[in-house]
Amino acid sequence: MSDRFTITLPVAEYAPAHFRLAVDGKVATVTLDRPERKNPLTFESYAELRDLFHALRHEEAVKAVVVTGAGGNFCSGGDVFEIIQPLLERDMAGLLDFTRMTGDLVKAMRACPQPIVAAVDGVCAGAGAIVAMASDLRIGTQDAKVAFLFNRVGLAGCDMGACAILPRIVGQGRASELLYTGRAMTGEEAERWGFFNRLAAPDAVLDEARALAGDLADGPTFANAMTKRMLHMEWDMGVDQAIEAEALAQSVCMQTEDYRRAFDAFAAKRRPAFEGN
Amino acid sequence: MSDRFTITLPVAEYAPAHFRLAVDGKVATVTLDRPERKNPLTFESYAELRDLFHALRHEEAVKAVVVTGAGGNFCSGGDVFEIIQPLLERDMAGLLDFTRMTGDLVKAMRACPQPIVAAVDGVCAGAGAIVAMASDLRIGTQDAKVAFLFNRVGLAGCDMGACAILPRIVGQGRASELLYTGRAMTGEEAERWGFFNRLAAPDAVLDEARALAGDLADGPTFANAMTKRMLHMEWDMGVDQAIEAEALAQSVCMQTEDYRRAFDAFAAKRRPAFEGN
Amino acid sequence: MSDRFTITLPVAEYAPAHFRLAVDGKVATVTLDRPERKNPLTFESYAELRDLFHALRHEEAVKAVVVTGAGGNFCSGGDVFEIIQPLLERDMAGLLDFTRMTGDLVKAMRACPQPIVAAVDGVCAGAGAIVAMASDLRIGTQDAKVAFLFNRVGLAGCDMGACAILPRIVGQGRASELLYTGRAMTGEEAERWGFFNRLAAPDAVLDEARALAGDLADGPTFANAMTKRMLHMEWDMGVDQAIEAEALAQSVCMQTEDYRRAFDAFAAKRRPAFEGN
Repeated sequence: MSDRFTITLPVAEYAPAHFRLAVDGKVATVTLDRPERKNPLTFESYAELRDLFHALRHEEAVKAVVVTGAGGNFCSGGDVFEIIQPLLERDMAGLLDFTRMTGDLVKAMRACPQPIVAAVDGVCAGAGAIVAMASDLRIGTQDAKVAFLFNRVGLAGCDMGACAILPRIVGQGRASELLYTGRAMTGEEAERWGFFNRLAAPDAVLDEARALAGDLADGPTFANAMTKRMLHMEWDMGVDQAIEAEALAQSVCMQTEDYRRAFDAFAAKRRPAFEGN
Repeated sequence: MSDRFTITLPVAEYAPAHFRLAVDGKVATVTLDRPERKNPLTFESYAELRDLFHALRHEEAVKAVVVTGAGGNFCSGGDVFEIIQPLLERDMAGLLDFTRMTGDLVKAMRACPQPIVAAVDGVCAGAGAIVAMASDLRIGTQDAKVAFLFNRVGLAGCDMGACAILPRIVGQGRASELLYTGRAMTGEEAERWGFFNRLAAPDAVLDEARALAGDLADGPTFANAMTKRMLHMEWDMGVDQAIEAEALAQSVCMQTEDYRRAFDAFAAKRRPAFEGN
Repeated sequence: MSDRFTITLPVAEYAPAHFRLAVDGKVATVTLDRPERKNPLTFESYAELRDLFHALRHEEAVKAVVVTGAGGNFCSGGDVFEIIQPLLERDMAGLLDFTRMTGDLVKAMRACPQPIVAAVDGVCAGAGAIVAMASDLRIGTQDAKVAFLFNRVGLAGCDMGACAILPRIVGQGRASELLYTGRAMTGEEAERWGFFNRLAAPDAVLDEARALAGDLADGPTFANAMTKRMLHMEWDMGVDQAIEAEALAQSVCMQTEDYRRAFDAFAAKRRPAFEGN
C-alpha cells in the first residue's frame, strides 16, 4: 500500500525523496519541505519518515535529531487531496494499513535511541502536531499554532497515540479540550502548559533546536538513549517496578567509560568529553 | 439501600426527582438545584445522577452534557445530615454499598459517550469537586472554590477515583496537596493548573459551557465518543499499545459518513454539517 | 556492602550517625547536615535514610516527616569522592547493590504511612533532587536550584524512579528536558510547573514545611496514610479499577472514630480533634 524505502547506513548518505535530511556532525536535521503547501504529509512522506526513524535505530553516527518545517510553518498534516480523499475509497483493511503506518511513525520516533527536538513555527496541525508531540523536546515560537484538528475533519482525537501522550504532556483536562475541539493551542499556551520547552524568535527557533540537539549529542549518548528507553518503558509501570527497572538500567550505565570520563574530568577540574560508550 | 430510578428513553422526557434536567437540541443540562444548601448531594440524588448517566449510554438524541449548580454554587458535596450522619450507623457492607454507588456515578460519567462540560461557580466541594473532576471539560469562575475536602471530615483523599484522576489533571504534587489538606483551589489556581479549561464571568459561565457543549454536539459525535472512550481506555496502556488501539479506533471512524462530509465540505469550501454517523 | 542500621522504636530515641533527626510532637524532621559540602549523600547516609524511612512504617508516634538540609542548601547528591569514585571500582553486582539501595530509599519514602514534606533551599541536585521528588509535598525558595544532573556525570536520567515520577509531577515534556540536559530548574519554574507546592522565603521555608507537616499530623492520619497508599497503588491502574479500589479504601476509613469525631465536631460547631484511629 505505501512505499517501502530502503535506507541503508550511514544515514548521512541517504537522499530522501520526500523531505530534506542534513547531517551536521552528530545531529541529523529533518526538514519537511513543501513550503507552498505548509509542508503537508503524504502517504509517501509518512512512509519515508517512518523508515528513516526506523533506520536511525541502528545509526551509530547520529546522536540527536531535529525535526522542522520549511518556510515558517512546521507541518499542515495529512494532505486533504493526497491523503483524506483517497482514504475515502479504501475498505477497512486499507484504512487500517494507513492508521497503522502513521502509528508506526510515532513508534519509530519513540524507539530510536536519539533524542528528537522539534523546532515549531507557524502551522503545526493534525499529523504535524502529532510529530511535534512525539518528539522528546519542543522549541516553539509565539506564532506557532498547534492544532490536533482531527475532529474538524470528522475524525476522533485518538490518532497516532494522542489520547495517551498529549495528556501526559499538558494534563488530562487541557488535552481533552484540544482533542475534542480541534482548536489551535497558541505558542504562549504551549509554553505555559509544558508542550513547548521554551519559546524562541521565529528566526532563531531552528538554531536553538540545533544547539540543544548538539548539546545532547555531545553528552553521554549511551546514557541518553537509556533515558529515552526508560521514559518509554515506565509509562505504565507501577512506581516500585519503575524503581527496580531504573536500578538495572543505571547500573548498566555505570559500566560505561563516559561515567569514568565524567569523574576524571571532575577530578581534573575540566569539562568531560563524552564519547557515548 | 439507595433508590433505583427507571430512566427510559428519550431522556428529554424524563423528569428527575432530585435535580433539574433540560434538553435543548442535542445538549442536556443537569442542574443541581437546592441552592439554599449550596446544592448538596443526597443518597437519592447520587443514585439518580448515576442512573441518568447510565441511561445516557443509550441515548442517541443527546450528544453533549452540561453539569452545573443553581444559585451561584456548583455543589457542596455529600450533605452532613443526610449522608455523613446516617453513614455513621452503617456496617461495612452498608458503607461499601455507598462508596460503590458514588464510584458508580463517576464510572457512568466516564462511560457515557457524550462529552460532559462542567460549569463551576462558587462552592465546589467534596463530591461536588469529584463531579467537576469526572467531567471531560470544565469552565470555572474566579470565585470558584474547588475543595477535595474529604480529610476535613476525617476521610481519605481516595474518593471516587480522585487519587487516580486528579493527578493526571493538575499534576501529582498539586493533587497531593489538595487531597492531603482539603484546602480550596481558587479559580485562578484551577485555570493555571489545568483543572479549569478557562475562566468566565459568573453570569456567563453557564452560557459558555452550553456554547462549548453545543459546538461539540454539532461536531462528529461518533468520533467524539471514540475520543472519550480512548482517553479512558489508554489511561494505563503503554505507548505502543495505545498507538495500536488508536489505529483500530481511527480506522473505524474513517468509515463514518462524517469523515466524507468533512472532505466534501472542504472541497466545496463550506462548513461541514456533521450528523454523528 | 552498605551498612545496616538498627533503628528501633520509638524513632524519637534514635540518634542517627549520618544526619540529624528531631521529633517535635508528631512531626519528625530529618536534616541532612554536612553544610560545608552542601549536604552530600554517602553510602552510609543513603543506607541510614533508607532504614529510617523503613522503620517509620511501624512508628505510631510520628505522623508526618519534614526533610531538609542545613546551611541554606538541600542536598548536593551523591558525593563525587565518596560515591562516584568508589563505584568506578565495582563490578556489575556491586553496582546493582548500590542502585538498588538508592532505589530502596525512594521505595521506603513512598511506603511509609507518613506524608513527607521537603523544605528545599539552595542546591538540590542529583540524589538530592530525587529525595525532594520522592517526598509528597515540597516547599521551595526562589533561590532553589533543582537539578537532576545525572547526565552531567555520564549517567542516565533514569535514577531512583525519576523517569516515572518526575513526568507525573511536571509533565512529560518538562521532565524530559530536565532529565536529558541535567539543567537546574529554578525556584520560580518549580512553582510554575507544580514541583514546588509553593515558594517561601529562605528563612521561612523550614518553618512553613513544619507548619504544613504539623497540620497534616493533627489531621485524620489513618485516612492520610490511606491517601498516600492509594496515590501509590493507583499509579498504573485503569480508572474503573482505581474507583473500585477507592470504594474499598474509603469504606474502611468510614469505620474510623475520626470520621465520627468530624461529624460530632461539625454538629457541635467546633473544630474536630482527630486522633488517627
